[in-house]
Amino acid sequence: MIRVGIVGYGNLGKSVRKGIELTSDMEVAGIFSRRKLDLDLYRPLLNIKEYKDQIDLLILCGSSDKDILCQGPELLKDFNTLDSFDNHSKIKEYYYQMDKIGKENGSLALISTGWDPGLFSLNRILGTAILPEGESFTLWGKGVSQGHSAAVRSIDGVLDATQYTIPKPEILEKIRSGGVFEFDSHKAHLREVYAVIEDGADEKEIEEKIKSMPDYFAPYQTQVHFISQEELDKNHKKMLHGGHVIRRGKASGDGDALIEFNLDLQSNPDFTAAVDIAYARALYRLSKEGKKGAITVLDVAPKYLSEESYDSLLNLI
Amino acid sequence: MIRVGIVGYGNLGKSVRKGIELTSDMEVAGIFSRRKLDLDLYRPLLNIKEYKDQIDLLILCGSSDKDILCQGPELLKDFNTLDSFDNHSKIKEYYYQMDKIGKENGSLALISTGWDPGLFSLNRILGTAILPEGESFTLWGKGVSQGHSAAVRSIDGVLDATQYTIPKPEILEKIRSGGVFEFDSHKAHLREVYAVIEDGADEKEIEEKIKSMPDYFAPYQTQVHFISQEELDKNHKKMLHGGHVIRRGKASGDGDALIEFNLDLQSNPDFTAAVDIAYARALYRLSKEGKKGAITVLDVAPKYLSEESYDSLLNLI
Repeated sequence: MIRVGIVGYGNLGKSVRKGIELTSDMEVAGIFSRRKLDLDLYRPLLNIKEYKDQIDLLILCGSSDKDILCQGPELLKDFNTLDSFDNHSKIKEYYYQMDKIGKENGSLALISTGWDPGLFSLNRILGTAILPEGESFTLWGKGVSQGHSAAVRSIDGVLDATQYTIPKPEILEKIRSGGVFEFDSHKAHLREVYAVIEDGADEKEIEEKIKSMPDYFAPYQTQVHFISQEELDKNHKKMLHGGHVIRRGKASGDGDALIEFNLDLQSNPDFTAAVDIAYARALYRLSKEGKKGAITVLDVAPKYLSEESYDSLLNLI
Repeated sequence: MIRVGIVGYGNLGKSVRKGIELTSDMEVAGIFSRRKLDLDLYRPLLNIKEYKDQIDLLILCGSSDKDILCQGPELLKDFNTLDSFDNHSKIKEYYYQMDKIGKENGSLALISTGWDPGLFSLNRILGTAILPEGESFTLWGKGVSQGHSAAVRSIDGVLDATQYTIPKPEILEKIRSGGVFEFDSHKAHLREVYAVIEDGADEKEIEEKIKSMPDYFAPYQTQVHFISQEELDKNHKKMLHGGHVIRRGKASGDGDALIEFNLDLQSNPDFTAAVDIAYARALYRLSKEGKKGAITVLDVAPKYLSEESYDSLLNLI
């Protein structure tokens, strides 16, 4: 059995726990948190090093910038770690930092897996390797952005809100049909907001405030709908997400080819956990083979991801 | 430079040659064929072993059952080999045969790559590894089936023909929307035939003969169109193909998830060659690392496929 420690018990941590229960080769050896949890498996994060001999790897389930950037380098000194670190602008720096710590301490970190980064990265890499002459497109949604939802909720008079990121169908159509155009990620997505506001609050004023928020909404086409708390709770509380990675180019320099990878997810944390669990199995196996330092989806051959034997996987070739 | 020998110079061999010209790390070291070719790089297949020291790997471009089943085991004794062996019912047996020969002779074979088997296999494996509780669907097309086109041409009175395999849109829709139904690959595809017939030949009789051909057409919904040779030459001579691999299931046992991989290809051999070339690079690198025997897409970590450095690929994570 692969003994997994879960670090952080928010949405992702809970999904990882549920997911591990469904495997037959992994078990949860401890759930580590700063705040006290009413769970048998709860252990104070402060004491985690005491459990070193009872754990094969840790899955870090905190937030990228606030938690993982501190926890990853510290925990890798004593444990193998897996994370879904998703701040794209810092991934390279984080990779080299973790690689050095892992090599110095004889441990292995698999960083930045999940679906983006993770499966989407894998498809961006496959696309450019197979069609070196071409263009790549990544689009997100339809899905809930927690950051943008929180930004709307921060506005005075807003009681609750959900924000959907939606790739524009006409842009997807242009990409698929080989249309020539200037791709601009801001113009390729629209943002749809469902907001609950205080009695008597000014809808026009709040809508204007949302649409003009720099970075979050100003560069995008944004639609705002005001609804009741009841309707929001009923129809807009799922953490659905998804997206598209598309590579189009010339195969062997001649025939046009389109490679498309799509995800449609009813629960972002459940799916991220499912990917993390498969890659945790790979991390365990690669560490048993003696690998040290940091790795990414780039380093993982597909056979390491599955519980099934090589012989059985040959049936899927 | 990775020195590649091309074995067989039909559609795939020609596409591999074109594709290698576009790389900066590979070169064609010889084109081996049984029939004499008017090419500088032509070498008689019979003498291939004389070129052993000038070649790092061979890409076998013949047909699966007639050529590769004989050539693979024989050539692996002296060379590293890559093939797109695509007879799914024999892949496992072929794998173990090649693995034994490679281990005995210190060489490495990468078998059954391309797009199906190949990229489609990779996605079937990823899908089951990440969503172990779920269902997989593979659909082909819209694309030209050479075998079915030839079957139509074999009918008396038919001068020329092109057959398209087409996944039914309503079946794709059912899969994507989570519909519950009995999936039957025969019923999920329709076959569309464009045929040119002799002057005075009986259209009704020929249509009946096509639709009732066992295995090829009888189990399918088939549409037949009679057109002129001119129209066939103008509109139906491209070797386009493509398809879909879809996995749907419960992520971490709860949230429904849909993973979809689609290909839309203007030239089947050009794209197969593009995939073969990327995997040939991986074969070369893995053989340099000391790997021997047989491998498949299951064994190839994504970093081995690209000409770009690991540091540069980290930008795509």
